Amino acid sequence: MPLGVDYADQDCSLARTIEVVGERWTLLILRDCFLGVSRFRDFEARLDISKAVLTRRLTDLCDAGLLERHSGPERAGYGLTPLGRSLWPVLFTLLEWGEAHLAPDGPRRRFEHRECGRVLEAGARCPACGRAPDLEEIDTYAGPGAVHPRPDAVSARLRARRALLTPL
Amino acid sequence: MPLGVDYADQDCSLARTIEVVGERWTLLILRDCFLGVSRFRDFEARLDISKAVLTRRLTDLCDAGLLERHSGPERAGYGLTPLGRSLWPVLFTLLEWGEAHLAPDGPRRRFEHRECGRVLEAGARCPACGRAPDLEEIDTYAGPGAVHPRPDAVSARLRARRALLTPL
Repeated sequence: MPLGVDYADQDCSLARTIEVVGERWTLLILRDCFLGVSRFRDFEARLDISKAVLTRRLTDLCDAGLLERHSGPERAGYGLTPLGRSLWPVLFTLLEWGEAHLAPDGPRRRFEHRECGRVLEAGARCPACGRAPDLEEIDTYAGPGAVHPRPDAVSARLRARRALLTPL
Repeated sequence: MPLGVDYADQDCSLARTIEVVGERWTLLILRDCFLGVSRFRDFEARLDISKAVLTRRLTDLCDAGLLERHSGPERAGYGLTPLGRSLWPVLFTLLEWGEAHLAPDGPRRRFEHRECGRVLEAGARCPACGRAPDLEEIDTYAGPGAVHPRPDAVSARLRARRALLTPL
């Protein structure tokens, strides 16, 4: 299970989680999967890494059971497994801390409970209904603090409102 | 602010957070601060790193504003700043995912709302009162899944029930 980072003698579930998601670029690959990125070339456009490193990370994430590879001409690519999807609160909480403390121009990305039309707050909860909506009920779009947009076409498409997990 | 990991062209608050807490061992040092570890030699006992790496990580965490150094003969050591304390939901959520998915013998650590006597659940909330208790209201102790305890004396003391943030 460990993906390069290893804390063998730490009897601690935080250490175990970091072993799975703590490798450089891994959380950003998972982020893009939640946003709907699935094709190798689209990850490549979004991330400043070599094909070799991206291949290794995607393989490791499949081996860890977080991603699965889809083949076929129509929808070839990578998608989150149920285990991968269960990382949503982890990614949201990490992102939320950055939005609160490291986003001088305001939030860089919004996540909204489609039904209530409200931006998700702590714990990925909707302030209107009090629930943490399912991933299928969440829309996302670039926030006011996204002032240094990446120039690639994939990132441009991810700025507009879209449903989480919908393949690009 | 970046502590060794750098995602310069990612206009993303998740990337910004990882730049601050994503360096190897950093989250485990912060974990120990929440548990009450403050002295250099106690971090050293808990973490399998050299004095040089530990010194660098502690300095970086102070520079990032997450820890502050206390001097004086009585209480020399490191403590969380308010910014560092604001990482509690991040650490809890990462740990919780490991407890749910990577802890075959059950949770390795419990966090309990002292007043209600209930173990914290998703989002570090108490299932009895529905609140996310303040850090001062939380007790912690080794859980049933802590079956490979570290042999050092500091880790032994951290197995017993104690209040979060109380200096060892």
